[in-house]
Amino acid sequence: MDSEQERELTLADIARLAGVGLGTASRALRGLPNVSPATRQKVLEVAERHDYVVSPDASQLKKGATGRVAVVVPHLSRWFFGEMVEGIESVLRQAGYDLLLYHVGNLQDRQSFFELLPARRKVDAVIVVGFPVEEAERQRLELMLGAQIVAAGGQHEVYPHVCIDDLKAGSQAMGHLLALGHRRIAMIEAIDPEQPRQPSGRSAAYHMALNDADIESDPALVVTTAWGIEQGSTAMAHLLSLAELPTAVYAHSDEVAFGAMRTIRDAGLRIPEDISIIGIDDHPHAALLHLTTIKQDVRRQGVLTAQMLLGLLRHDEIERSITLGTHLIVRRTTASPRNG
Amino acid sequence: MDSEQERELTLADIARLAGVGLGTASRALRGLPNVSPATRQKVLEVAERHDYVVSPDASQLKKGATGRVAVVVPHLSRWFFGEMVEGIESVLRQAGYDLLLYHVGNLQDRQSFFELLPARRKVDAVIVVGFPVEEAERQRLELMLGAQIVAAGGQHEVYPHVCIDDLKAGSQAMGHLLALGHRRIAMIEAIDPEQPRQPSGRSAAYHMALNDADIESDPALVVTTAWGIEQGSTAMAHLLSLAELPTAVYAHSDEVAFGAMRTIRDAGLRIPEDISIIGIDDHPHAALLHLTTIKQDVRRQGVLTAQMLLGLLRHDEIERSITLGTHLIVRRTTASPRNG
Repeated sequence: MDSEQERELTLADIARLAGVGLGTASRALRGLPNVSPATRQKVLEVAERHDYVVSPDASQLKKGATGRVAVVVPHLSRWFFGEMVEGIESVLRQAGYDLLLYHVGNLQDRQSFFELLPARRKVDAVIVVGFPVEEAERQRLELMLGAQIVAAGGQHEVYPHVCIDDLKAGSQAMGHLLALGHRRIAMIEAIDPEQPRQPSGRSAAYHMALNDADIESDPALVVTTAWGIEQGSTAMAHLLSLAELPTAVYAHSDEVAFGAMRTIRDAGLRIPEDISIIGIDDHPHAALLHLTTIKQDVRRQGVLTAQMLLGLLRHDEIERSITLGTHLIVRRTTASPRNG
Repeated sequence: MDSEQERELTLADIARLAGVGLGTASRALRGLPNVSPATRQKVLEVAERHDYVVSPDASQLKKGATGRVAVVVPHLSRWFFGEMVEGIESVLRQAGYDLLLYHVGNLQDRQSFFELLPARRKVDAVIVVGFPVEEAERQRLELMLGAQIVAAGGQHEVYPHVCIDDLKAGSQAMGHLLALGHRRIAMIEAIDPEQPRQPSGRSAAYHMALNDADIESDPALVVTTAWGIEQGSTAMAHLLSLAELPTAVYAHSDEVAFGAMRTIRDAGLRIPEDISIIGIDDHPHAALLHLTTIKQDVRRQGVLTAQMLLGLLRHDEIERSITLGTHLIVRRTTASPRNG
C-alpha cells in the first residue's frame, strides 16, 4: 500500500496507471463483461496498490447515487421470499448494484424501517416484496427525493409492480374443484397477522366462484389463519370438527395445504377419496407431495421487478404494471367427490 | 427542504436544533431503543428539514467504517440459507448494521465476488455462509485491511466460525440405523457441484460407523449427488436399481431424504417396512413427512455468527469457534429391518 499517497486518485488515474482506457478500467472494477481476465487483474492490482475505492461509481451513477437498492421482505426463511430475492439479486448484480436486505418481520420493525430509511439516504431505490405499503409509509418513502420504489409480489395502486393476478389464481383453483363436482368446498384463507389486513383476491375468488355456481356460501367453511404449514394444519383440524365435512379444500398457498394434508391423513381420512385439496404456488415440495396446485413463477417475478427498477433508474419508458400468468397443475390430491 | 443550506450539518447541530442530547439524537436516527416516539419523530423531522444524512454514524463507527456487513451465500431459496440469513439479519439490525447480500451461485459469481470486494471496501466485515473459503479467496479478502471475516455453517481452520459437528451429526444418524439392526445401509452423499469439493464429516461418519460395526462397506451403496429434492429422488432411483437393495438409507440432508422417500414410494415400497430413511436438518417439512432426522438449529447459528462478528468489530475477546449440538428426532421413517 502506498501510504504516502496524498491526493485521492480518480478513476482516470487508475486507468492511466494500468495503461487502459477509462471505460475498461470502470468495467474491470465493476465486474462487468468485455474485459479480459489479465486486464481486469492489472486494473485491480493498480487500484489496490493505490488504495483506490470504487465508491459511487462516477462513470455510471449520477451525483448522490449510492449504487445500492434496498429489498424489504416480511419473511426470509419461507420459500416464496427466498425465490423472489434470488431473482432480484441476479439482475441487480449484473447491473453492478448492491442489495441491502431488510427483514421487517413485525409491525415494530416495519415502522422503524420506514421511519429511518429516508433519514439515511442509503439507497437509490426500494423494492418492497410481498406486502402492501400503507399511506403513511408511502409518505415517508417519498421523503427520499428521487428514490424509486417498486413492489414485487403484490398489486399496488401507486407503485410500479410485478405480481400475479390473485383473483385469477383463486378462480383457477375454485374452477377446478367445481368442475370436479364439488359443492361443499372449504377455504383456508391465509393472512399475515403482523401486517395490515388487505382485501385478498384469493378470498374474493372463493366467494365469486360459489356465487357464480349458485352455491350458498357457508361461513363455517372459511377458516382464516397465518401463512404456514403448522397454521394450515390447525385450520384443517377446525374444519374436521364440523358436523358436515367439506368434500374439498381450497388453501391459499401450498404450505398451508401441506399442513392441512397432514391433519386430514392423521385423522384417518384419505386424499382425494374423502377430501380433495388444492393450493397455490407450486412450491418445490408440491410435486413431492403430489399436490394439485396453481403454479406461479416467483423467481421470474423477482427478475422482472429488478429489471423494471433498473428501467426507472435509467429514466426509460417502462411498463409500470406487469401481471404474470398462473396455471393449474393437476396432481393426485383432487378428484370428484365420492357421492358427487 | 432548505436548499440554501451551505455548511453540512453535523449530528451535534441536529441534536441542538431538536433540543435533545447528542446520544439521544444518534439513537433516534439509528433506530435504537430508549428514545420516546415523540422525541424520535422530532429528531427525524429536524434531520429531514436540514437534509441531514446519517452516513457512517460518527458517534459509533470508527473512521473509514461503512456500517455494512456483507453476507455471502451460495443459495437463497433453500431453507438452510433463508434461516441462516434471518438469524444473522436480526442481530445486525439490532446493532445498527446494514446487510449487503451477495449470492454467489456458481464458480464465476464466486470468483467475481472475491476479486471485486476488496477493491471496493464497501463493508466492514464479511460473513461467508455454508461454503469453505479457498486459499486464493482468503488472500483476496485479506486485502480489505481491517475487515473481519466470519464463517457460518461450516468449520474453518482460519476464520472464526459457528457450525455443527458434521461428523457427530452423521454418527448420530448412523448410530440410530445400526442400533435398529440395519447392516446394509446406503448413503446419499450430497455435495455442491458449483463449489470446490471438501472432505465431508457427514461422509466420514458413514465409513467410520460401518468400520466400528465390522460391516464391510459396499461402494455400490454410496451415491453422490447435489443437495436438493430432485437430486435425492434420482440418487434413490439408482440405489433401487441394485440387485440387493439396502434396508436403510442415510441421507446427508432432509431435502435429499424427501426426494428419496418419493422414489421409494413411487416404486411401490413402504417406509419404514421395506426401507428405513434418516436425514439431517429437521427442516420444517420433516415433521410433516414424519421423517426421522438429526436436528440442527440453523437460525441460532446465524444469530451466534453475527454476535461473534460484532464482538470482533468491537475488538472484544471472543470465542472464535462455536459448535452447536445436534440431536436425533425419531419419527416414522425408521424401524428395524424386516429380516433383521
